Amino acid sequence: MSDILVVGSLAYDSIETPSGRVDRALGGSANYFSLAASLWARVRVVGVVGQDYNEADYKLLQSRNVDLAGLEKVPGKTFHWEGKYEGDMNEAQTLRTELNVFEHFNPKLPEHYKDSAFVFLANIAPALQLEVLNQVKNPQFVGMDTMNFWIEIANADLLKVLKRVNVVLINETEAEMLTRAENAISAAAKIIEMGPEAVVIKRGEYGFIMYTKAEGYFVLPAFPIAKVTDPTGAGDTFAGGFFGYLASRQDKLTVKDLKQACIFGSILASHTIQDFSVKALSKVTLGDIEKRMSEYQKVITV
Amino acid sequence: MSDILVVGSLAYDSIETPSGRVDRALGGSANYFSLAASLWARVRVVGVVGQDYNEADYKLLQSRNVDLAGLEKVPGKTFHWEGKYEGDMNEAQTLRTELNVFEHFNPKLPEHYKDSAFVFLANIAPALQLEVLNQVKNPQFVGMDTMNFWIEIANADLLKVLKRVNVVLINETEAEMLTRAENAISAAAKIIEMGPEAVVIKRGEYGFIMYTKAEGYFVLPAFPIAKVTDPTGAGDTFAGGFFGYLASRQDKLTVKDLKQACIFGSILASHTIQDFSVKALSKVTLGDIEKRMSEYQKVITV
Repeated sequence: MSDILVVGSLAYDSIETPSGRVDRALGGSANYFSLAASLWARVRVVGVVGQDYNEADYKLLQSRNVDLAGLEKVPGKTFHWEGKYEGDMNEAQTLRTELNVFEHFNPKLPEHYKDSAFVFLANIAPALQLEVLNQVKNPQFVGMDTMNFWIEIANADLLKVLKRVNVVLINETEAEMLTRAENAISAAAKIIEMGPEAVVIKRGEYGFIMYTKAEGYFVLPAFPIAKVTDPTGAGDTFAGGFFGYLASRQDKLTVKDLKQACIFGSILASHTIQDFSVKALSKVTLGDIEKRMSEYQKVITV
Repeated sequence: MSDILVVGSLAYDSIETPSGRVDRALGGSANYFSLAASLWARVRVVGVVGQDYNEADYKLLQSRNVDLAGLEKVPGKTFHWEGKYEGDMNEAQTLRTELNVFEHFNPKLPEHYKDSAFVFLANIAPALQLEVLNQVKNPQFVGMDTMNFWIEIANADLLKVLKRVNVVLINETEAEMLTRAENAISAAAKIIEMGPEAVVIKRGEYGFIMYTKAEGYFVLPAFPIAKVTDPTGAGDTFAGGFFGYLASRQDKLTVKDLKQACIFGSILASHTIQDFSVKALSKVTLGDIEKRMSEYQKVITV
């Protein structure tokens, strides 16, 4: 088992969905990712929070054996995101983004983080993703996510990051925006030309596409969920499950491992969306995952 | 092998997509359905065309051994649909619908059609679907499609048809409209409460969901196609492949047969969208389908 370094946001989210609303509930890509990945592997977090960050929210990650040595607490308020879902549950409408302490974040890795074998650069400014990656000595497997905002305003940096990662995990709309492709199938092939050896396109309720240089397309639907309470964090949960599973493998990673990792990520994300914030995700056990995996096998098998 | 009766439109379509445009090209649900189903079974068409209907378009179906005894030619013009796809290739924008000879269509079944074991009621007025169904003596397996227009203006008749069919094949948006469900997973379960024992929700580039009373959900993605030329007819092709395969089975139909039928329908539809009108579909052979089936197996297998 290898350690996974993740850099991303620790946030408070105010979210409205057809099922209700929550105010300043725990969120952020690094939280979802860490809760997911820590089911299989040890996670090291790089990030920043403000003085309003709750003790209980540190403890949640610590209870999962997540290393918080790289998590700074600085004067000011924690990153706050306000969003809404209506109609299309695959896409949030952002109502407000308050960067707060993230505005002047300058990630510095604790010495013992620098030998991390697995690195996940969650959705933050591409320049920060590069800064983190430059501090890791000899990463074996690097992944990244990004979003529309960075595709538009930091394209040059983003292209640099793309050349240095093994896998990109990205939303369907953003994959099409990044590549100017007409659909996700075409976008997947174009992203591979930008550097990585694998790309995973997350399609919300429709599941995912993986495209690898070695074996081409791997496409599967999401586990069927009749009632989606809050889709926030599904993508970061997917990434966490994906990386967690991979870091738990002993041997050199194969495409088969990547495929299996997609399924674990997808199954785990199907739990996240069944409650607000990290409520469902923080309770999921490996037993729950095994159970849903076997239900999923029935759903996709003739 | 059993005969399949289909009632639906024979049309000329004028279509614009990002790949180009065609004017008054062959279309209509009965044409797509028959070309697809006739790969496996004998098809009997009920429908109406105008005096502008081309001899070559009759011959195309005849070359597939399709029975056209129930196809009337009457004074006036053939049904004409004009549509456009841009951005979302899963949903056509209708620019114009000229019912023409379809306006006073009053389907009468030739005597030898009345013993048909399989019946497919393609997307036409629910009252006409009922009229056709009432003339069949002892149908063993009946399917239907419908669209937003009938859900809005002929809901009562539509609910009557739903009670008399074994399977509904319907688009995702229309399934949600029909049931007022938030998503297709929930819509599928609600449609089953309306009468049929199985429902297939067609999700365009995302594949399909089948829900059966007996075994619950069966969900798979579409075969990956990087360049979609014209999505018109994909749904009717799916239905044709689905029914054609089922009609070729010797024994009592099982859920496993329905699942296999979905895959054949989906694979066949992936051919239809690779060219305008019926161009790609009319050339597909069982050999092409077998080949793509085995590629598809690789795409969905770990």
